[in-house]
Amino acid sequence: MAHIDLGVDETRFPGITGPMMFRPETAQPLNELAEVLLRKLPHPLTPGERELIAAYVSGLNECTFCCSSHSAFAAAQLPAGMALVDQVRANLDEAPVSPKLRALLRIAGAVQESGRKVTPDLVAAARDEGATDLEIHDTVLIAAAFCMYNRYVDGLATFAPAGPDSYAASAKRIVERGYGMP
Amino acid sequence: MAHIDLGVDETRFPGITGPMMFRPETAQPLNELAEVLLRKLPHPLTPGERELIAAYVSGLNECTFCCSSHSAFAAAQLPAGMALVDQVRANLDEAPVSPKLRALLRIAGAVQESGRKVTPDLVAAARDEGATDLEIHDTVLIAAAFCMYNRYVDGLATFAPAGPDSYAASAKRIVERGYGMP
Repeated sequence: MAHIDLGVDETRFPGITGPMMFRPETAQPLNELAEVLLRKLPHPLTPGERELIAAYVSGLNECTFCCSSHSAFAAAQLPAGMALVDQVRANLDEAPVSPKLRALLRIAGAVQESGRKVTPDLVAAARDEGATDLEIHDTVLIAAAFCMYNRYVDGLATFAPAGPDSYAASAKRIVERGYGMP
Repeated sequence: MAHIDLGVDETRFPGITGPMMFRPETAQPLNELAEVLLRKLPHPLTPGERELIAAYVSGLNECTFCCSSHSAFAAAQLPAGMALVDQVRANLDEAPVSPKLRALLRIAGAVQESGRKVTPDLVAAARDEGATDLEIHDTVLIAAAFCMYNRYVDGLATFAPAGPDSYAASAKRIVERGYGMP
C-alpha cells in the first residue's frame, strides 16, 4: 500500500498513475515533459530509442514499475522488440544498438549516478558517432527526468503490477494516445 | 563551458537558464512544475519552506548552481533568512525548524538517495508531527524533481556564478515574477 492515501484503487491506478490522480496540478507538467521528451516528432531519435533510454535508467534505479512500463513502451516501438531492451539492460557494451545510441546510453548511465559523472570524454564519444547537441541534451534530460519519475513512484511506495500484461496494455495506450491522464 | 553549444552567453544565462533557452519546449513543463511545487498558493507549506527542501536536496546532490539559487530563494522568503538555510544544510538534526518540517526534510533526504529509502517509519514520523498526505506527496516530488534539475544542470556542465550577487538578483526576480523564461 502506498505511503499516502491516493484516493484511488491502486491496482487499477498502479505506479505513477495513482499520484497523478491524487495531484492533477503536478501531473500536467509531468505528462507534458514525458510527451515532449519521449514522443514528440520530428526528432532525430525515434520514440522507441527514447523509451529505451528511459527504460535503461529506470532499470539502473531499480524502479520496477517505471522499468517494466518503459521497457514495454520501448519494445512496442522498436523493430527488435523486448529482446533488444533486455540485451541493452543486461549488457550495454555487447547489445546490438548503433554506436551512437550506445554512446548516448552511456551518457544516460552517467547521469543516473550524478550529473557530475558526465565527462567531456563521454560527450566527445557520442559526438564522434554523430550525436548532435539536441540528442545529447535530450539524453541528459531524459535520464535526469527518470531519476525524478523513479523516485516519485518508489518514494510514495506505489503498487507495481507483477507480470507483463498490465504493462503491455499501458504500452498500447501510450503508443496510440500518448502521455496524459489515464 | 557547457558540453553543448547552448547558443547563449553562459555568463548571462547561467545554470539551468542556458539549457532552457536552448530547448523552450522542455523548459515550459520544467518551469510549470517548479511553479506549482514551490510557489503556488494556497499550500500548507510556505514558498520559503518549499524552497528550503529544494535547497537541501540540491546541496546533497552537490549541485552548486541549484543549491546556491534555491538557498537564495529560500532565504528571501523565510523570516530567519540565509542563517536558517545554512543551519539546515549543516546539521538538520539541530536546526531550529519545526518538528514537522524536520521530518519532511528527512523524507526529502531519503528520496535524494533513492525512492526506496523512504520507509514507513519516516512517513509515520512526519505524520506524527502533523504532516498531511499533500505535504508528504509534495515533499517527495520536490525532492525527486531536484534530483532531475540538479542532474540536468550538472550533466550539461553549465556555468555556475561564484559569489552570492547573481543568485540574490535571481531571488528577487523569482519572488516577484515566479518561474518562467528568464
